[in-house]
Amino acid sequence: MGRVTQRRKVHKFVLDGSAQAAEHPVRYREDVLAVEEPLEIRLGRMSFSVTMRTPGDDFDLVAGFLVSEGVIWDAAQLVSLRFCAGEDEDGVQTFNVVEAQLRPDVVLPDTGRNVYTSSSCGICGTDSIEAVRKTLRHDTADDGLRLPVETVAALPDRLREAQAVFDKTGGVHAAGLFRIGDDGSAELLCLREDVGRHNAVDKVVGWALREGKLPLSGTVLQVSGRASFELVQKAALAGIPVLAAVSAPSSLAVQLAEETGVTLVGFSRRTSLNVYAGSERLLSGAQSPA
Amino acid sequence: MGRVTQRRKVHKFVLDGSAQAAEHPVRYREDVLAVEEPLEIRLGRMSFSVTMRTPGDDFDLVAGFLVSEGVIWDAAQLVSLRFCAGEDEDGVQTFNVVEAQLRPDVVLPDTGRNVYTSSSCGICGTDSIEAVRKTLRHDTADDGLRLPVETVAALPDRLREAQAVFDKTGGVHAAGLFRIGDDGSAELLCLREDVGRHNAVDKVVGWALREGKLPLSGTVLQVSGRASFELVQKAALAGIPVLAAVSAPSSLAVQLAEETGVTLVGFSRRTSLNVYAGSERLLSGAQSPA
Repeated sequence: MGRVTQRRKVHKFVLDGSAQAAEHPVRYREDVLAVEEPLEIRLGRMSFSVTMRTPGDDFDLVAGFLVSEGVIWDAAQLVSLRFCAGEDEDGVQTFNVVEAQLRPDVVLPDTGRNVYTSSSCGICGTDSIEAVRKTLRHDTADDGLRLPVETVAALPDRLREAQAVFDKTGGVHAAGLFRIGDDGSAELLCLREDVGRHNAVDKVVGWALREGKLPLSGTVLQVSGRASFELVQKAALAGIPVLAAVSAPSSLAVQLAEETGVTLVGFSRRTSLNVYAGSERLLSGAQSPA
Repeated sequence: MGRVTQRRKVHKFVLDGSAQAAEHPVRYREDVLAVEEPLEIRLGRMSFSVTMRTPGDDFDLVAGFLVSEGVIWDAAQLVSLRFCAGEDEDGVQTFNVVEAQLRPDVVLPDTGRNVYTSSSCGICGTDSIEAVRKTLRHDTADDGLRLPVETVAALPDRLREAQAVFDKTGGVHAAGLFRIGDDGSAELLCLREDVGRHNAVDKVVGWALREGKLPLSGTVLQVSGRASFELVQKAALAGIPVLAAVSAPSSLAVQLAEETGVTLVGFSRRTSLNVYAGSERLLSGAQSPA
């Protein structure tokens, strides 16, 4: 079960106003992350879907996915499930490809999904990161951006204040794009809300593209939920150097942030926040120009 | 902006122990839901993707989605965006299909996505509900299930107590399947956690399929987050009669629950909960056999 969680060193900034916090605003501690890894679902030798998931109960995941897609509804329709024997670049079995054998009379619904033949078993988090790196058009690493940690810690409150729909329904995610000024202050450029967290980020990025503002250097993207692999991917592709989430990041989100030079902040609160990657961009009180 | 939120009558059960609550445990009130509707993204006449989203800023959503997929990275690559002129069955323009015209030199990456030609512009929430209804194999409506509202209100706490990974990381979603006994008590059958909320539910449903327990009549599925269209779809396809979420449901989740006979509970707490569909299955204190 070691693959369900992963321990990582994080930089915890404490801003609670106490004398101790003022003297030692940065603490190094271990944090436990939920592991996120891709799982490829195959029907026989045909690739059917790839989903990001926490490893564990993968056969149940594949079986349930096939029920939810309307492919099967009875245990007898599922002849067998097995892991495709694959290894990552270090020769470690990845257990990230499951092959389902269905009874011959099971008809695949028209899902609009491209089912293609696949032979390699080597899908893993590193492959997913490599695929994102290949599509990067903007380099966020080494941009020289430095900003006070207090500025970042204030953004969740500013996001909530600016949210129009959330207060009424409690059911939408928000993404807010802030421009960092020379004095370290943050100006809200664009706020978008959506029932889908990825959509809220896409709406912000699309606004920036149409306004001719890509790449979004010198900005922070504050999101209302957790930080997944996909959200870091969206930030990196838009050239956003800092992604801050109110809740926890996944293991693969942290790895992708490291690889693409995105500063990743999690558990962002008024009084503390954790930095999982790219902490060199954040200056604590003592280091700030102000 | 009327399409961003939707007002609905809900049954609010109050269980706070006060005399007033005991006398009038059920209150009818209006609740504001975040609207969820499908959006089809086309590249010219070719269908590229369908996503569930909150209407509004749809051109930004499409542009940002194309950036996030690595298709475009510069405003000049996006020649135009327009709504496909389509109407729903009542003759109302749906604004749920956006056609993007890209510069001829833009190359589509191999996304594993099936790009097919589409002519109709009529995609809407009703179509999505109809598509689910066509794949239903288990009938949850009129199953005669009745259970005390107190039992449902206790499930979020029981889910949290049973969660293994969440306490350590704060970054995973949970789904717990409970069997309702003849005495109205709830027994935990299966708990699954995952960074993806849909995966947690798929793992529960897949467990049940492999154990030969489908359809899951007489059960409640308690989830840790919000209730989207897709979660109600998964419950309905597995024959689960009651879906309870800790947070808010979307408009389309409520509509699908009504159409498929799933009881949908939101904002489920120890002291109160809202019932958005299928409230006839929930008995308040005065009506309970106990």
